[in-house]
Amino acid sequence: MATLPSVSYSITVRLELDAGSTAVGGLTSAVERVGGMITALDVAAAGHERIRIDVTCAARDTEHAQAIVDALGAVDGVVVHKVSDRTFLMHLGGKIEMKSKVPLRNRDELSMAYTPGVARVSQAIAANKDDARRLTIKRNSVAVVTDGSAVLGLGNIGPEAAMPVMEGKAALFKRFADIDAWPIALDTQDVDEIVRTVQVLAPGFGGINLEDISAPRCFEVEARLRELLDIPVFHDDQHGTAIVVLAALRNALRVVGKKLDEVRIAMSGAGAAGTAILKLLMHAGARDVIVSDIHGAVHAGREDMDPSLRWIAENTNQDGYSGDLRGAVAGADVFIGVSAPNLLSGEDVAEMNEDAIIFALANPDPEVDPDVARLHASVVATGRSDHPNQINNVLVFPGFFRGLLDAQSHHVTSDMMVAAAKALADVVSEDELGPNYIIPSVFHADLSTHVANAVREAAQRDQKTRRGEA
Amino acid sequence: MATLPSVSYSITVRLELDAGSTAVGGLTSAVERVGGMITALDVAAAGHERIRIDVTCAARDTEHAQAIVDALGAVDGVVVHKVSDRTFLMHLGGKIEMKSKVPLRNRDELSMAYTPGVARVSQAIAANKDDARRLTIKRNSVAVVTDGSAVLGLGNIGPEAAMPVMEGKAALFKRFADIDAWPIALDTQDVDEIVRTVQVLAPGFGGINLEDISAPRCFEVEARLRELLDIPVFHDDQHGTAIVVLAALRNALRVVGKKLDEVRIAMSGAGAAGTAILKLLMHAGARDVIVSDIHGAVHAGREDMDPSLRWIAENTNQDGYSGDLRGAVAGADVFIGVSAPNLLSGEDVAEMNEDAIIFALANPDPEVDPDVARLHASVVATGRSDHPNQINNVLVFPGFFRGLLDAQSHHVTSDMMVAAAKALADVVSEDELGPNYIIPSVFHADLSTHVANAVREAAQRDQKTRRGEA
Repeated sequence: MATLPSVSYSITVRLELDAGSTAVGGLTSAVERVGGMITALDVAAAGHERIRIDVTCAARDTEHAQAIVDALGAVDGVVVHKVSDRTFLMHLGGKIEMKSKVPLRNRDELSMAYTPGVARVSQAIAANKDDARRLTIKRNSVAVVTDGSAVLGLGNIGPEAAMPVMEGKAALFKRFADIDAWPIALDTQDVDEIVRTVQVLAPGFGGINLEDISAPRCFEVEARLRELLDIPVFHDDQHGTAIVVLAALRNALRVVGKKLDEVRIAMSGAGAAGTAILKLLMHAGARDVIVSDIHGAVHAGREDMDPSLRWIAENTNQDGYSGDLRGAVAGADVFIGVSAPNLLSGEDVAEMNEDAIIFALANPDPEVDPDVARLHASVVATGRSDHPNQINNVLVFPGFFRGLLDAQSHHVTSDMMVAAAKALADVVSEDELGPNYIIPSVFHADLSTHVANAVREAAQRDQKTRRGEA
Repeated sequence: MATLPSVSYSITVRLELDAGSTAVGGLTSAVERVGGMITALDVAAAGHERIRIDVTCAARDTEHAQAIVDALGAVDGVVVHKVSDRTFLMHLGGKIEMKSKVPLRNRDELSMAYTPGVARVSQAIAANKDDARRLTIKRNSVAVVTDGSAVLGLGNIGPEAAMPVMEGKAALFKRFADIDAWPIALDTQDVDEIVRTVQVLAPGFGGINLEDISAPRCFEVEARLRELLDIPVFHDDQHGTAIVVLAALRNALRVVGKKLDEVRIAMSGAGAAGTAILKLLMHAGARDVIVSDIHGAVHAGREDMDPSLRWIAENTNQDGYSGDLRGAVAGADVFIGVSAPNLLSGEDVAEMNEDAIIFALANPDPEVDPDVARLHASVVATGRSDHPNQINNVLVFPGFFRGLLDAQSHHVTSDMMVAAAKALADVVSEDELGPNYIIPSVFHADLSTHVANAVREAAQRDQKTRRGEA
């Protein structure tokens, strides 16, 4: 699969040339000849003799960006000045900020927002702790917590390097669900310390979003925090992904006319995302699943399994299949990969059941080339934005937390996740549904509201059940 | 000292009366008769028969507010409807929010701010951790950390109830120094846990502002964090107060023509603020100080002293005075109180040296009635906004952190604090200086900039010294 130039790798090249020169015409073709793409051409300064132009181009990667700069410099009469990376410019100084919602223009406003007026507000909360959700940011705030151990596909790059991703996440929370999220990057990768730290810093937040914590530690961190805290704890890499996959699979099954509790599902990947997808699919009714990892199918006879793998072995693969991934895929109706690039070929997909569904979610390079998979399967989804059916967590986590916060929920349950998946799937109407449109765009209007409403209602049902009313 | 009605305790009373009634005229006098003050009177709805009016009044306290409502209800023909507390309205849903600084309008912007573009930014920081101060919010972010153990004068009210104060602090950071502060209220009061939690959550922040942590725990928390972290740690209750006191004292001494290293200073209070004030005054040159607490003067012969008191005993009170506060005040040039209300009388002040300086900073009721103190002392300052010379931390902490962040300082030193105090004092020009104007208003233009510049320069000198250049 050829990688295309991407705006996520845009450079702006400032160059200078003779005002009378015809070289301007040569710039576009020079960039195109090396496979770049000019997205903007601005004249920064024009004189009688010399002219300055900012050329913005999309590139594939660092080497490619350099090739573009070289190509521009080789155009006759062109002098290259500064080269800026537009993505880095966007991140300069960080991507989020704190704003005051109250005016502090004079002494009176100061005395109400801060001392002495604030004392009465604090006293009210001291008398009734629940008032914190009414009188403080707890009503609308989420801590985005990472230890930097599994950041995107970059691995264990540490808390400082994780911050740009966490800030981006916080910005998405605001953009799609008007939630005030703040990133907390932890300087520890010890499970006990992560759990204790999050527990200790929780009072000011209405929810915890765990992010990019490597498996299997993330399972324990999440499970223990859910026990300890009275605010919802969500691990987006697990649950966000699982909800979007379930939503997309519901619609893919509608496209091919199959049922979740009847299809055979072959999964690749037993990490954080894989395990969460598996559990949610089973909670929603899936019954016939075989999970494979780097050592082949997970089955009861395998040795050296951690608790998570053992759970998988005990709850899937009833027939005890012990072969490799390709054998598991043969005859399956659905393939779901959250693992590694290029594990399957077109022939493997051809061996699947009729009307096969392929979710090849490894990023940036899927388990199977989607263009090849489409030759043999009815529905193909990836994690990529340059193919149809992008499985993207942004579709879920903002609306999911909006619903939790609006319900003042203390918990996250599988029922809430299934409700969110249904709501997300239902955003695609019967008329729109098709092999290339099983999941809406992240910019679909009201998407978060639909998810939020479903989660809020599920959370309210959960509250009634816990109060013994249902 | 009579307490006056305050806008920090404003209520808005919605009432209804006959449209033709003359009762409107009686509203103001009814409120005034019970000592309230009408600050606004808005007609909310007017009909031919009935008229609705929102009356906003400043009250002294809860009982007084009720008395005002009763007085309004007793006016002939008036029916009282809803009573709202303006301060609580201002705090509803919290006082701060998170905002994205980057646009996320379309796929291209998403791919630069978040995946896949963000990956390159994270990789750059992974390769060079110092880039975090360029490419993330660390450049401009401060964690406002409390354990809720000593909130304002309210005592140990816990983390949830501390949040309104911490949010207010964050809002002040933004208002006065454009700093992005986020409140972190800790659910522990164990020193080891506080230290470890702050250490673990530090990577995403450029500074730590400790707040409302009770003494003597706050000393250890601060000292240990300063050892452990590579970002500056500042305890506002200690250092902010100390800097403002030093600034005010510099100017007060200019007013009376005395010198810091020659005056005798009697202090009342050996808690967090008192100890920090003492140390900063001594760093700035003060030599003759006697500190008293609830048990009288701190002297070397006293028993059962904690390490902090022992330090005071060893470094002050050379003559070993062992009497009470009043005896220490007699003959002193300066009194500085950060302790409890009404410890001194006018006679005590009269016993001081000529041209005495009184800083009676206990809040809301000072160690001595400032009106009485003024009869005998040349300069009187308090913590109150309804008297001249208000000693207020807001004068310092925003600009102080602005300077630290701009210098990318890893430390806070006493030299930086003295520099900040000098800059703050110098905001009052020779022409303006006088007994009732030793310290500027918090709304003085450019105040924070002056403090920030002085701190930045001091931090840069400190960096040179540490690099061995000075």
